[in-house]
Amino acid sequence: MKKLKFGIIGAGRIGKIHADNLIRHPQAEILAVSDLFAGPELEEWAASRGIAIVTKDSEEILNHPEIDAVFICSSTDTHVPLIKKAAEQGKHIFCEKPLSMDIRQTEEAIEAVSKAGVQLQVGFNRRFDHNFKRVREHVQNGAIGDTHLIKITSRDPGPPPEAYIKVSGGIFMDMMIHDFDMARFLSGSEVEEVYTQGSVLIDPVFGQYGDVDTAIVTLRFANGALGVIDCSRKAAYGYDQRVEVFGSKGSVTAANDFPNTAVLSTEDGIQSDKPLHFFLERYNAAYVDETQQFIDTLLLGKAVSVNGNDGWQAERIARAAKLSMQENRPVKLSELQ
Amino acid sequence: MKKLKFGIIGAGRIGKIHADNLIRHPQAEILAVSDLFAGPELEEWAASRGIAIVTKDSEEILNHPEIDAVFICSSTDTHVPLIKKAAEQGKHIFCEKPLSMDIRQTEEAIEAVSKAGVQLQVGFNRRFDHNFKRVREHVQNGAIGDTHLIKITSRDPGPPPEAYIKVSGGIFMDMMIHDFDMARFLSGSEVEEVYTQGSVLIDPVFGQYGDVDTAIVTLRFANGALGVIDCSRKAAYGYDQRVEVFGSKGSVTAANDFPNTAVLSTEDGIQSDKPLHFFLERYNAAYVDETQQFIDTLLLGKAVSVNGNDGWQAERIARAAKLSMQENRPVKLSELQ
Amino acid sequence: MKKLKFGIIGAGRIGKIHADNLIRHPQAEILAVSDLFAGPELEEWAASRGIAIVTKDSEEILNHPEIDAVFICSSTDTHVPLIKKAAEQGKHIFCEKPLSMDIRQTEEAIEAVSKAGVQLQVGFNRRFDHNFKRVREHVQNGAIGDTHLIKITSRDPGPPPEAYIKVSGGIFMDMMIHDFDMARFLSGSEVEEVYTQGSVLIDPVFGQYGDVDTAIVTLRFANGALGVIDCSRKAAYGYDQRVEVFGSKGSVTAANDFPNTAVLSTEDGIQSDKPLHFFLERYNAAYVDETQQFIDTLLLGKAVSVNGNDGWQAERIARAAKLSMQENRPVKLSELQ
Amino acid sequence: MKKLKFGIIGAGRIGKIHADNLIRHPQAEILAVSDLFAGPELEEWAASRGIAIVTKDSEEILNHPEIDAVFICSSTDTHVPLIKKAAEQGKHIFCEKPLSMDIRQTEEAIEAVSKAGVQLQVGFNRRFDHNFKRVREHVQNGAIGDTHLIKITSRDPGPPPEAYIKVSGGIFMDMMIHDFDMARFLSGSEVEEVYTQGSVLIDPVFGQYGDVDTAIVTLRFANGALGVIDCSRKAAYGYDQRVEVFGSKGSVTAANDFPNTAVLSTEDGIQSDKPLHFFLERYNAAYVDETQQFIDTLLLGKAVSVNGNDGWQAERIARAAKLSMQENRPVKLSELQ
Repeated sequence: MKKLKFGIIGAGRIGKIHADNLIRHPQAEILAVSDLFAGPELEEWAASRGIAIVTKDSEEILNHPEIDAVFICSSTDTHVPLIKKAAEQGKHIFCEKPLSMDIRQTEEAIEAVSKAGVQLQVGFNRRFDHNFKRVREHVQNGAIGDTHLIKITSRDPGPPPEAYIKVSGGIFMDMMIHDFDMARFLSGSEVEEVYTQGSVLIDPVFGQYGDVDTAIVTLRFANGALGVIDCSRKAAYGYDQRVEVFGSKGSVTAANDFPNTAVLSTEDGIQSDKPLHFFLERYNAAYVDETQQFIDTLLLGKAVSVNGNDGWQAERIARAAKLSMQENRPVKLSELQ
Repeated sequence: MKKLKFGIIGAGRIGKIHADNLIRHPQAEILAVSDLFAGPELEEWAASRGIAIVTKDSEEILNHPEIDAVFICSSTDTHVPLIKKAAEQGKHIFCEKPLSMDIRQTEEAIEAVSKAGVQLQVGFNRRFDHNFKRVREHVQNGAIGDTHLIKITSRDPGPPPEAYIKVSGGIFMDMMIHDFDMARFLSGSEVEEVYTQGSVLIDPVFGQYGDVDTAIVTLRFANGALGVIDCSRKAAYGYDQRVEVFGSKGSVTAANDFPNTAVLSTEDGIQSDKPLHFFLERYNAAYVDETQQFIDTLLLGKAVSVNGNDGWQAERIARAAKLSMQENRPVKLSELQ
Repeated sequence: MKKLKFGIIGAGRIGKIHADNLIRHPQAEILAVSDLFAGPELEEWAASRGIAIVTKDSEEILNHPEIDAVFICSSTDTHVPLIKKAAEQGKHIFCEKPLSMDIRQTEEAIEAVSKAGVQLQVGFNRRFDHNFKRVREHVQNGAIGDTHLIKITSRDPGPPPEAYIKVSGGIFMDMMIHDFDMARFLSGSEVEEVYTQGSVLIDPVFGQYGDVDTAIVTLRFANGALGVIDCSRKAAYGYDQRVEVFGSKGSVTAANDFPNTAVLSTEDGIQSDKPLHFFLERYNAAYVDETQQFIDTLLLGKAVSVNGNDGWQAERIARAAKLSMQENRPVKLSELQ
Repeated sequence: MKKLKFGIIGAGRIGKIHADNLIRHPQAEILAVSDLFAGPELEEWAASRGIAIVTKDSEEILNHPEIDAVFICSSTDTHVPLIKKAAEQGKHIFCEKPLSMDIRQTEEAIEAVSKAGVQLQVGFNRRFDHNFKRVREHVQNGAIGDTHLIKITSRDPGPPPEAYIKVSGGIFMDMMIHDFDMARFLSGSEVEEVYTQGSVLIDPVFGQYGDVDTAIVTLRFANGALGVIDCSRKAAYGYDQRVEVFGSKGSVTAANDFPNTAVLSTEDGIQSDKPLHFFLERYNAAYVDETQQFIDTLLLGKAVSVNGNDGWQAERIARAAKLSMQENRPVKLSELQ
């Protein structure tokens, strides 16, 4: 049984999640993990998982002759340089979103990957969510006819700390980039024009960094469909991730996931628990699936299902959405070229 | 346009509801209303509805030559004598449930009706409920295949006053008689055997009158299906009226009705309002429909859909259920004959 | 017991609905009904309801000395002249939406009403819907904190005939005017700016009249909240009328109403019936309630809860929404003045 | 970090599931696996999980000096002898349900365990289900007041093969034993009396072995509450596992789990997918949790939460339920002693 050898670059929370999911695949083996802050804690973690090499230097991974593929889970500003080097070394790449904050750089990364003939999968984990996948199946198999409207609700249970807000790239690149990808995933069409209404309603700190915490983005797709995404940095009741696709023959919706189905009825009314807390709970299985599929795809020598172009398209929508808000006008994606 | 002339015997809450529903039918007219406690209040009520005759004496209605049909909404002990007299006078009859507390008397009433060739509809209003009708349609059209299990939940928002408990005839005849009829309605089969577990869990006053306030009745139907009804005199969250029919090809359930679909999500969880309060709210439309259908049936000269036999069968099940509880053993309905 | 006397102007479907709901109020009496096409059919209808006068001439109603109030249910172009005349005659007015297609005319009507000191209630029946009322209660009592987002879904089961489309005033004035009022009703704030994306996706006939059949309108409210309405002339599964209000402490949603709660489970999946067919089914009780409340308000000598200003505001939003679509840019309502 | 050493006896489907869940615990290690049919396939499976010993002889595990605890996943008739031997060897025991088909034998096993001072956890995995745990929390924290009614629905997606039916011990011991345990788990009280209605409605093969495929069992608890379990060997729509507890202050229900939340609305109605297919899907996380908790309990030197007494009580209810059906009468559990 052939085994693929992996290296993990960046061992923060998401890097460790990918590592544990990799280990669950019988044909995957992790040879090395790198992190700028590697130390005894990471060494213990690696030892318990049978990972031989722990290093602060990602070059050690990129140059390791036996490593077939790398997971890039470091900070966004390192993504493009790491992708380029990994591609040069002929290694397949799984990279977290966004590929970069700069579309030119993203394009360079994609070009490098293309030239090297390696695979690049982007971490749009929500495409692997059981609910959204089922919605897309209904859309794809014609159950709702031609798509007319796409609606996405995207609300976090609470805002990140100020230190993160400062470097996040803003709500469009940091948070809604997932929703822009979801819009493409569900519509099967490209976004041509966007219009953004944004506000600072939750915490003035967002305004201090030129960011907003609440936004509605309207989309116009190449196939004529319209879309709308509403986004908030704070939903008091927890993580709110729903979609709806409406078409000529009907609609399909996906509601939130909940920790249980218990319903309490008393003289005060009918009550149930809040949705699963946040992305780690909601997308737990999706993280597993995106990793398993990445491995399976490489083993089969096929092309990944979520690639650099998907990352690039979502980043362009994010950039147009921000520009629309800044200039309070609809922005065509063609303007960006 | 032909008009049917009606008399209302017993002008309590339910009598007035039937009267108002009668008036809504363009081919129905109420000529008279009788009540033991008729007085100025009832006269004003009757005047506002254009009802000419208000009397304490039901004979005035029974003997009125122009009246085609009567609604018997007086106390249960008066049902059988009134049915007999109305039948003798050739009047069609709508009678509230139960027909009587005594199966022999019920049989006499049915015989009188049969001999006179008039129609007798029994007030099993739940057969006209939008949810239960839809469940039965699914059963009847074969959507769930052969029926294996019937489950009925029947819980009131609160117990009646002691004065009522005393003369109610007990939980089986007063409250569950509706459920016994529902079991027959949904199964399309007759009950052959019952077993009852009953308890006094809500208020000791029930025990003082040899009654219970909580019961589970298991049913065995002639077609082999099994059934179970759970019943409580008090659900803190309100009126709880649900059914489920399970068969070889699937199941069909009916949930409660609610005053609205609003769902509130906060950090405390997900909340919605309690079900519609009680039978007047839940079965409001069903009361209208049973009256309208009674009139329509008479106008067409057809046989009513819920007749004396339906009343008789439900009463026999009630009697068997009570006997089962008293002797703590399964009771066959054939024992009652 | 004091009785208010009413006249109905325009005896189409909605006029007859209002008439029947009026009759149900013990303190309301209809003296006359007028319709351009009055004939034997209307006379029979009026006779069965005890309405003495049937006429083709609305003047007969407007000049009738005993009539306290009129229902204006004729075509939109007649609303303003009729309101003016009724006001001059000191009659209270219930008028269907929109008051007019022209904001200046609407303003003249409001002025006439104000000068005459009569009441003018506008037929925004959805404010009386059990679901939307409950949503608003939650918003008003602070359950969701400060309002951040308002989302309204508004989809008809099918498009009107071409003859109607031609004179409808377009999707914004004809259909979404209800949603614009709902946005104001739920937010408790005024709309300051709108942006519209519209498309012809259902039937090219809409495009022939400069209209669209699918639209997304983004709203910005004076209190900082954002809103979005998605609208379609045809939902294959029926009338789709849902709202959501999201705020600092949570959200409240209202789902559709259904004809029953029956759920069928088979090897093919879980199935239930479509929502209530269209506005007559969904808003049946709301029509009753708006009429009853109009009567009660007049009897108490109070000001109506949905007045001319509400009509005017909704019409302005509709006009701005249309302009936004035509010029593909956000439009401030202040531009309209 | 202390590690517990485990042996697995019986490497069928459930044995392998427990093994994989054990491996996920950082303080658990499997030293050996035994199976009557051990061969190359099992050896490969064991090798991939780092399990050193593969044997046909369970004695090799029971006598292994380093093994701290065993999982007994072999056929039911071997449970008691294996428990006795394991206890004699001072090993802790996790045993699948039922402990045996014979209450005397079960008692002997429990006595052996008690004498040896080892822990015995019984595989009532449903106690670890997220839904049922939440229901019990509501019951335990008083949210529904005193318990009046307990309702359990237990339906498999399809019957087992005849070969299994023959040796299954019948529906009460094989299938409903889980429900009898659930009844005790939810009520926090002991069952005192049972009454069973059973039928062969799905497949005559059940009747050939003196078994039924459909049953309703009514329960009376020591604390006065009543209960009812309905059970079917075949639900066309899949695995149906729901509970409801009703009390003086309200009720709490748990619905099924579904593979996704997608809802499709078309002109045919509203549709969603069937529940999770069967116990492996529905109770996947529960299997993980029961194993993890078993390990944690042993590490802490505490008593397990589901012990031999729980197995014994459920078996007694199963025996009483069968006797009740055979004799068509209510059976008191005290009769069995």
